Amino acid sequence: MKRDLRYPLKIRAVWFDEDSKKVCWINTLKLPFQEEVYCSDDPGRVAKAIVDMEIRGAPAIGVAAALAVGAYSTRISGLPLGDFKERVEEAIDTLWRTRPTAYNLFYALKRLRRVLEEGVAGGVEPPVLSRRILEEALEVMWEDVESNIMIGEHGAELIPDGATILTHCNAGALATSAFGTAEAVMRVAWYKGKRIRVIATETRPMLQGARLTVWELVKEGIPVTLITDNMAGYVIRKGLVNAVIVGADRVTREGYVVNKIGTYMIALAAKRHGVPFYVAAPTSTIDLSSTVNDVVIEERNPWEVKHVLGRPITLEEADALNYAFDITDPDLVTAIITEKGVVYPPFRESLERIMGGR
Amino acid sequence: MKRDLRYPLKIRAVWFDEDSKKVCWINTLKLPFQEEVYCSDDPGRVAKAIVDMEIRGAPAIGVAAALAVGAYSTRISGLPLGDFKERVEEAIDTLWRTRPTAYNLFYALKRLRRVLEEGVAGGVEPPVLSRRILEEALEVMWEDVESNIMIGEHGAELIPDGATILTHCNAGALATSAFGTAEAVMRVAWYKGKRIRVIATETRPMLQGARLTVWELVKEGIPVTLITDNMAGYVIRKGLVNAVIVGADRVTREGYVVNKIGTYMIALAAKRHGVPFYVAAPTSTIDLSSTVNDVVIEERNPWEVKHVLGRPITLEEADALNYAFDITDPDLVTAIITEKGVVYPPFRESLERIMGGR
Repeated sequence: MKRDLRYPLKIRAVWFDEDSKKVCWINTLKLPFQEEVYCSDDPGRVAKAIVDMEIRGAPAIGVAAALAVGAYSTRISGLPLGDFKERVEEAIDTLWRTRPTAYNLFYALKRLRRVLEEGVAGGVEPPVLSRRILEEALEVMWEDVESNIMIGEHGAELIPDGATILTHCNAGALATSAFGTAEAVMRVAWYKGKRIRVIATETRPMLQGARLTVWELVKEGIPVTLITDNMAGYVIRKGLVNAVIVGADRVTREGYVVNKIGTYMIALAAKRHGVPFYVAAPTSTIDLSSTVNDVVIEERNPWEVKHVLGRPITLEEADALNYAFDITDPDLVTAIITEKGVVYPPFRESLERIMGGR
Repeated sequence: MKRDLRYPLKIRAVWFDEDSKKVCWINTLKLPFQEEVYCSDDPGRVAKAIVDMEIRGAPAIGVAAALAVGAYSTRISGLPLGDFKERVEEAIDTLWRTRPTAYNLFYALKRLRRVLEEGVAGGVEPPVLSRRILEEALEVMWEDVESNIMIGEHGAELIPDGATILTHCNAGALATSAFGTAEAVMRVAWYKGKRIRVIATETRPMLQGARLTVWELVKEGIPVTLITDNMAGYVIRKGLVNAVIVGADRVTREGYVVNKIGTYMIALAAKRHGVPFYVAAPTSTIDLSSTVNDVVIEERNPWEVKHVLGRPITLEEADALNYAFDITDPDLVTAIITEKGVVYPPFRESLERIMGGR
């Protein structure tokens, strides 16, 4: 590691391999049963990994897309500038179209496109321009790592010693480039000596909670208990939960939180029982230009709902819906934990304030 | 069929086979992939079928337990009265201990115990007494069938033509002796020509929605769409649902509804968006003697949560919780649909009134 990270870096979902000049990732579809790593400098292959959810989690998607463009630019840096520009633009477009909901993806690709455009405008030749693009991609990654640590630092302050935290899906190291967002809060609280426990929802259809969050927390030694998604309301009602912390795929300027399907009902239960509901998200997830009406909720293949780990659970001819995300209203959110600090309602003002300081 | 049921009886979960004098049931664990039927007059075997959830759903459990006692009494009707009494009491105890939450089980077994005790007190010999016990058991079954039809009749009035109904778990024919509770409402509405659609939650951990509700509705030709449990909030928020109808395992005198885990969060979402939340339950599910504090929520083996259809979804060493039911507060319930009519809040008074007319 070339930077001082203050905390042990045990799990990485996505990274850049300096020797092969490729982006590498853990295939999260195979976890926790197999730890399978792929490396590639082909934007089409990385796009497929994002679409198929080998790589998932809004920050990890953004970082993987950025590194894919960086790796690809490096590979084709021998082309003339015109061809280079065209191919890199195609790569950005391919990655842009992978998933519609996560804001970090667009945030990362916009940054690389700007570097490309500035370089082309200035007549910078591909051998140099490709290096600039890769550097920007690595910067996207390191900023994400730094963000996660800072989210952890700010969030850990909110967690009392002995608290039980309920989380949904995986907002962990496997959803970012390191540490996670919601899980960074748990990790930093834990490293600081707070005796926390975690309740993790399994998170159908893809079971990121059962497969990824449980695996990460067991690796950290943080006590974790698995529940089905539909148990969240009852465990909150029973008083077993002191705080809910989830990640986000997008936060709109009004403070609507777009996150993994199921988040909304957990927020409703938390509100009903006075349990704080925290959203941990880097500012790269916050889109001040969008309102809740602009959000496109991705509908994925119904096959995912009709199967569990590839095996059918219903009649083959059955219809199914597969919304990947839902929307939680600002009035249900206690606070949003960003790398720049914790913001409270009214979010319209507090988000603008924190983003202004960027 | 010896009674006029007015509607086509396509699926039965539990019935009495007059030739073999045994209780028969579909092993719902194997549906929809196999239609496996078992018959037995051994109370231990039927108790195991209830514990393992071959037979599930509060009314079906009550009927199966009653028929098991009826079949067993018939088989041992050659014993002297003292032995007969002792063995039948043991059978009742064995069945009583199978599952703690469903009230119908205790309701049914109490009725058989009363017949046994009255017979013994009156010196009625086993050949006659066993017939009375079996008749009472069959009466429990036929009352359930009748109840379901009447629940369907009353409930169908509440369903507008063209409505989309969201249901959770399986409160269908496979949860009762015929027609179902929540599904009786759908069936009768459908038979009366209302063009309804159903959204069914998969209902982890045992997937009764994906496996049973979808199978039943496809058999009826009623359009059904499967979702994961965690999608219910978003489809309600999106305006895709006109009414929620669920069954119940127990209704307390204050109107608290104990039903399949996950019901509570659906009720919270329905309330938030002004969607009516109906509970369909025969009066045998209503326990005026109990308050919410008396309710024992069954905790089942965590293995069910850690596996889907027998296959692991998480690390073997992971901890898990497995609450089978949750509790929905009376203020979230629009109405309770019973065979005697529809009752509205305040439930304390309305339930007492309807039960008084028993």
